[in-house]
Amino acid sequence: MAEFTFYTVAMSRGQIARWALHEAGADYEHVVFDWATRPDTFKTINPMNKVPTLVHHHDGHDHVITECAAINHYLAETHPDKGLLPDVHEKASYFRWLFFAAGPLEQAVVGKAMGWEVPEGKTGMAGFGSLGLALDALDGWLSANDFIAGSRFTMADTYVGSQFVWGLRFGSIPERPSFRAYVDRITQRTAYIEANAIDAAIIKAAQEG
Amino acid sequence: MAEFTFYTVAMSRGQIARWALHEAGADYEHVVFDWATRPDTFKTINPMNKVPTLVHHHDGHDHVITECAAINHYLAETHPDKGLLPDVHEKASYFRWLFFAAGPLEQAVVGKAMGWEVPEGKTGMAGFGSLGLALDALDGWLSANDFIAGSRFTMADTYVGSQFVWGLRFGSIPERPSFRAYVDRITQRTAYIEANAIDAAIIKAAQEG
Repeated sequence: MAEFTFYTVAMSRGQIARWALHEAGADYEHVVFDWATRPDTFKTINPMNKVPTLVHHHDGHDHVITECAAINHYLAETHPDKGLLPDVHEKASYFRWLFFAAGPLEQAVVGKAMGWEVPEGKTGMAGFGSLGLALDALDGWLSANDFIAGSRFTMADTYVGSQFVWGLRFGSIPERPSFRAYVDRITQRTAYIEANAIDAAIIKAAQEG
Repeated sequence: MAEFTFYTVAMSRGQIARWALHEAGADYEHVVFDWATRPDTFKTINPMNKVPTLVHHHDGHDHVITECAAINHYLAETHPDKGLLPDVHEKASYFRWLFFAAGPLEQAVVGKAMGWEVPEGKTGMAGFGSLGLALDALDGWLSANDFIAGSRFTMADTYVGSQFVWGLRFGSIPERPSFRAYVDRITQRTAYIEANAIDAAIIKAAQEG
C-alpha cells in the first residue's frame, strides 16, 4: 500500500493538492471519482463530502487531512528533506499568506462570483474587506518578492499560487503584472507540469469515454 | 524593546491573538487603538488595515504576521518549549481543523450573519457547503476528541476554540453539547483568563473615559 491515499475529482481543487504531492515526491495512490460516482462511504472519511481529501497511512494510524492549504502544508511537514518548509526568517510570511489565501482571498473571490455584497454597517465583520483590498495586499507583496515566503519557492506557493493560476485563467482574479509574472514563474516547475498532465489525461479520457 | 509588538483593538479578533500570546508566554508590548484613532501609518504595516497584526522583532528583521490563525500558529512555532505544537500524530488534525475554521467555518458563519445564500447551481464553488454541514463536521470531531489535535490542548485550540467561545456567546453558532463542553474545557485555562482580563479592563476604561 502507498503511504498516502489521495481522493480527488480530476476537475476540482484536487489539482492543487496533486501539485503538492509531486513537489513532495510523496508515495501516493489516487482514488479518482466524478461527482456522480462518489461512493456513499466517502462521507465516513470526510463528513464534508469534499475533495481533495488525503489519508496518511502512518505508523498504524490513518490520519485524515482535508482543506487544500492544510494538505499541502502537511505534505511539506512530512517530507522535510525537500526544502519546502519555511526557514526561521520565512515562517511569518509563509503562514501569513497561506492563511490569507485560504481565508480572506478565497472568501472575496467566492463572494464576487456569487454576487454577494457586504451590507452597510457590517463591513467590520467581513475580514476580507473587499476583493480589491485583498488583491492590493498580495500585489504589494508579489511586486517586492518573487515568492510567498520571500526569495525562493516553498510549499506556500503551491496553494497561494494556485489561487492565481486558476483566478487568472477563469477571470475571477483580474490581470496585474505582478500576478502574471508570479504565475509564469511557478508554472514552470516540473512538479506542476507532471501533476497537471495526470489530471489533464483523466479529464480527456472521461470526455472521450 | 519587547520581542513582539501586538497591534490590536480591545473589542476585536485581537482577543484571540492575545490568548495565544499568553499561552506562548511571549515577550510582547501592545499598541491598542480604537477604530477612530487608528493611525494612518498602520497601513504600511498591514495594508489590509486590520487587527490583530503582530510584528516579530527578530535577528535584525521585523517580520509582520497577520491573520489570527497564522499569528497563533506562529507563536507556537517561535515558542517550541511550550508544547503547543502538534506532535507527528497530531499534525493532520491540527492543520486540518485550523484551516477548516479559518476557511469554511468562518465563511459559513459570516455568510449566515450577512444573509447570503448560495445560488442554485453554484454549490460546488462554495467550499463551506453550509453552516450546518460545517458544524456537523466539527461536532463529530469534538464528540470523539476533547481537543482539536486529539487528547490534549495545542495552539489550534486557541483559534478554533475562539470561534466557538464567540459563536456561542453571540448566537452565531448554535448550542450543541459537544460545543458547550469544549468551550467550558478551554476557557478554564490560565492564559485565557489572563488575556481576557486585560482586554476587559481596556474596554471598561474606554467606556468610563
